[in-house]
Amino acid sequence: MKTVRIGIVGYGTVGQATADILHAHAAEIERRSGAQIVVTVVCRRSPVTTPVPGGSRIETDWRHVVDADDVDIVVETMGGTSVAREVVAAALSRGKPVVTANKNLLAAHGEGLFRLAAQHHRPLGFEASVAGGVPVVRAIAEGTAGDRLIAIFGILNGTANYILTRMEAAGLDFTEALAEAQAAGYAEADPTFDVEGFDARDKLAILTRLAFGSRVLPDKIPTFGITRITAVDLLYARRLESTIRLVGAAELHNGQIEVSVRPWLVHHSSMLAKVDGVNNAVFLQGERVGTQMFYGRGAGGNPTGIAVVSDLIEIAADFAAGKLAAKTAPGFCNAHDLPISLQPHPVPWYLRLTIRDRPGIVARIAEIIAREGINIDSVLQEPHMAKDALSFVITVEPVSEPVIHRAVAAINSCDFLQSPVLLLRVQSPQ
Amino acid sequence: MKTVRIGIVGYGTVGQATADILHAHAAEIERRSGAQIVVTVVCRRSPVTTPVPGGSRIETDWRHVVDADDVDIVVETMGGTSVAREVVAAALSRGKPVVTANKNLLAAHGEGLFRLAAQHHRPLGFEASVAGGVPVVRAIAEGTAGDRLIAIFGILNGTANYILTRMEAAGLDFTEALAEAQAAGYAEADPTFDVEGFDARDKLAILTRLAFGSRVLPDKIPTFGITRITAVDLLYARRLESTIRLVGAAELHNGQIEVSVRPWLVHHSSMLAKVDGVNNAVFLQGERVGTQMFYGRGAGGNPTGIAVVSDLIEIAADFAAGKLAAKTAPGFCNAHDLPISLQPHPVPWYLRLTIRDRPGIVARIAEIIAREGINIDSVLQEPHMAKDALSFVITVEPVSEPVIHRAVAAINSCDFLQSPVLLLRVQSPQ
Repeated sequence: MKTVRIGIVGYGTVGQATADILHAHAAEIERRSGAQIVVTVVCRRSPVTTPVPGGSRIETDWRHVVDADDVDIVVETMGGTSVAREVVAAALSRGKPVVTANKNLLAAHGEGLFRLAAQHHRPLGFEASVAGGVPVVRAIAEGTAGDRLIAIFGILNGTANYILTRMEAAGLDFTEALAEAQAAGYAEADPTFDVEGFDARDKLAILTRLAFGSRVLPDKIPTFGITRITAVDLLYARRLESTIRLVGAAELHNGQIEVSVRPWLVHHSSMLAKVDGVNNAVFLQGERVGTQMFYGRGAGGNPTGIAVVSDLIEIAADFAAGKLAAKTAPGFCNAHDLPISLQPHPVPWYLRLTIRDRPGIVARIAEIIAREGINIDSVLQEPHMAKDALSFVITVEPVSEPVIHRAVAAINSCDFLQSPVLLLRVQSPQ
Repeated sequence: MKTVRIGIVGYGTVGQATADILHAHAAEIERRSGAQIVVTVVCRRSPVTTPVPGGSRIETDWRHVVDADDVDIVVETMGGTSVAREVVAAALSRGKPVVTANKNLLAAHGEGLFRLAAQHHRPLGFEASVAGGVPVVRAIAEGTAGDRLIAIFGILNGTANYILTRMEAAGLDFTEALAEAQAAGYAEADPTFDVEGFDARDKLAILTRLAFGSRVLPDKIPTFGITRITAVDLLYARRLESTIRLVGAAELHNGQIEVSVRPWLVHHSSMLAKVDGVNNAVFLQGERVGTQMFYGRGAGGNPTGIAVVSDLIEIAADFAAGKLAAKTAPGFCNAHDLPISLQPHPVPWYLRLTIRDRPGIVARIAEIIAREGINIDSVLQEPHMAKDALSFVITVEPVSEPVIHRAVAAINSCDFLQSPVLLLRVQSPQ
């Protein structure tokens, strides 16, 4: 039995879970991979206080992992994009396969790293980088390899989903639900990355490349977070038999990619509405396979560690058999660039307005909306609201994003508005 | 660029879709596999009336495919277990990799065929054999390879699910919904295999092997179909904020496998209830990954063809690189046998009784149930029912299957019963 030696750079929650899984399930992993996978060294800048399972040595300088003679495969679980990029590049350049859980790194520098991997004929595993407990990278890259995908969308951030779920279930406002998420360990002290949609954006950039084979950089993706959603929006959502979810979506229309991260109003009967708490769900639509959905825990040491180990088993098996090779990641290698659409296809929208109440306002807004040729689908106003901050909701029939943005800009310039219009995309009936 | 030549044995819906996909998506498939995959020969006993894409030759004797010098990989899409077994065995014995979509074959003879594959160092691909459009074989065998799975369950038969969905949506009785399914092409003239749960049972046998690495033969799986479910059951289900789904489930409890195919009462809020029409969904529960779910079309030429092609791409890549090897299928190779539990863990149940109405019956039944130490959770009786065939429902708190069967047998022996009790497992709150 061949032994394959692992070095883990970044020994936090995911790194530790990975070492723990490899140790605890060693016999089964050996049966699956045909190799004995052992962690020989872990690297962390701050002191490691609990013993490493299997008793591997501990370094503080990542170069002592990448350069070590007793490391065959490097696991990068440190996060960030600058040092992590050096680590992955150095390992590949030395001919060592890499497994990474780092979505930010791949979203920003994936192309260069996969090029390096191809040059050195070494695999770069990244199942753990998107939606930890959901094996969606494998599903897209292998499962649907014979199909043409036309859409990929889903709930890609567990923290934002937890906050929205709590706002709905307990009638909390955003700040209250955020505080709860922080207390529960689901949100960080600075929650910007999660609640502004940036984390979902990085994951969507990776998924869009895989699905469409097209180069998509995160900063090209229009991104709207959930910080402006209030308890009253969840109330109106319920009146519409719906709830609110932060959705990353990439759709192919007329050879162009429509891509965004934004809150959607989703009907209670849809599967998106059933995804609650810190879970993630990814939907694929293919010309031939129809709609597929993959659901599971989006983050956390154990689910992400299992994804890291799934890559390690595959690579270790090839390593032991002397068959290492670069693995093609569509959209990172040989990307053909599809344009990002500037005139997306029409969808219905939800507009929540908060105004100082006075006569004639609804007529005024209806007139602005009509001027853009938009049809109103429904108007909802809860009774007994404060006159100086009265919230009501208008839903409109499908129009494209530039058109609704013009209407919203015109409404926002009205003096009776207390705060800018909150705009949600409404999920089209499936 | 290396060419890899495919022979397809069984040129029906799935075989044709496979040939069509390989032809229509040739460029993309070449990019993914690093090989040119061409169908050189197809085999079908009855005449082939439409031309084969790419113009491959047509045979009527499978031996002319398996033995052909211009066939590198054999695709078996004929179905059945006797000739198909000969085809797969002959191909593997000649050192040709095989891709099969045949659940019955693998459920019945998988072990011997995988042994043959290992002997000849050739892969046997079977992603298409379970839930065509749902890449669950890959997800279990690779995605969760580092975890210990504790349960796998799901909706594994699209025909039965279509019938139950229509019964609920349109208030149809079983025979009406079945006729609709037959008219829509979702059910065969003889629907036994689908509606009695035998098809789901074969798929569950394969999934249970993969998940637990344990030998499970289909005839060891207690199997109950949906033929005795009536419109009134869907009515009572709705009163309980629930619907009915045919569920195949395998759970690990105390080192024993509990396995069954049976109708479940599932709450409207659960994801199982959201799976409607001809779709399939498979849930995995792992110690570390938590709950994962995979959803998609369960059958049909295109979804199943995509699954066949996903295996072909993987095998063709290895073939072209001269790296062919047998692939371990846990539970088929080196199975460790876990006992099938005879005393499953307690779950809640739904009992529907149809009786000739007369005084004292509820008291009599309550007494029988109490005698077994079972607690009644609810009693439901719709008003204005016919006195000579009055249906009512009792739900009970969790008890194990042998206990509820004893109570049901005692009730069935009562003379006021018009038909045997219908027993549904109630999904425990998640």
